[in-house]
Amino acid sequence: MTVALVHHPVVDKNGETIAAAVTALDLHDIARAAKTFGADGFYVVTPLQDQQELVQSIINHWVSGHGAQYNPDRQAALALIRLAPSLTAVLAEINALRGQKPKVVVTSARMADSDLGFDQLRAMVAEGHPLVLVFGTAWGLAPELIESADHRLAPIAGNDGYNHLAVRSAVAIVLDRILGR
Amino acid sequence: MTVALVHHPVVDKNGETIAAAVTALDLHDIARAAKTFGADGFYVVTPLQDQQELVQSIINHWVSGHGAQYNPDRQAALALIRLAPSLTAVLAEINALRGQKPKVVVTSARMADSDLGFDQLRAMVAEGHPLVLVFGTAWGLAPELIESADHRLAPIAGNDGYNHLAVRSAVAIVLDRILGR
Repeated sequence: MTVALVHHPVVDKNGETIAAAVTALDLHDIARAAKTFGADGFYVVTPLQDQQELVQSIINHWVSGHGAQYNPDRQAALALIRLAPSLTAVLAEINALRGQKPKVVVTSARMADSDLGFDQLRAMVAEGHPLVLVFGTAWGLAPELIESADHRLAPIAGNDGYNHLAVRSAVAIVLDRILGR
Repeated sequence: MTVALVHHPVVDKNGETIAAAVTALDLHDIARAAKTFGADGFYVVTPLQDQQELVQSIINHWVSGHGAQYNPDRQAALALIRLAPSLTAVLAEINALRGQKPKVVVTSARMADSDLGFDQLRAMVAEGHPLVLVFGTAWGLAPELIESADHRLAPIAGNDGYNHLAVRSAVAIVLDRILGR
């Protein structure tokens, strides 16, 4: 199971499609959660070249640079990160590596028509078929990306109607629910 | 159930007791998770006056300043934040508010002698007795704070021996396990 964090196409607070900036802590927190729960990889998806360069400089520092000596645990986590310009490129790369087109499961806090619960996703992951679990930054994945997916995961339900988790928190909870003991 | 994020006494990577700096994103992410899962409050614990001023300025911006208009969802979350100079002060304040001394449950990724599982903690929280769930920044809570607690929660187990979650991720997962549906 592979995690993808998409920075384009996502929507802003007005529902307009944008390319969001990369947040360094997203890379650290999600890589650490992916490593802790045993995800196969973590794709950071952005078409913007300056943002790709930022991601690459963070990877270089922590995986092969000074950060690797300072904190080997962080090195092990950030070594999971791969860069891709689009979700299509992620799927092509996994297809080439695994010889199978991965299933695409998208997430959203406002998912109205989910067709997949956490127990079902846990079972799918356990089957071992290549699968990409897609999270959006900013105000979430753009509608066309949600509609084109194979499955739409149920939202993480809160207790009083409030459901505004950071994407870092949402990834941690979803990985725990589908891969945790 | 109340969350406390402790910045002193915590340990650094060499096991020395330090006062860690406050990370702004910890405040946002943990407040949003606390609000989503219905925690009663979120104490940010630091004895350092400049760090207390930083926390207060973040609260002011998002709860009563420009941030409140820009993002009312963030306002609702950050309104849960309380400042305290020590865990002792947190316990005194809850005792004064609730008329009962709260139980203290501490967390650590390296907890060797835990006496509480997640199901047990979920049942304790459901009983409604005042309870403070304590997380440490930096390399975790200092030993004296762990030893003085009423209970030591089991660590979040990873899948390949790696267990280095961000404290933001750990709080999200623990709240989901004990308060989530």
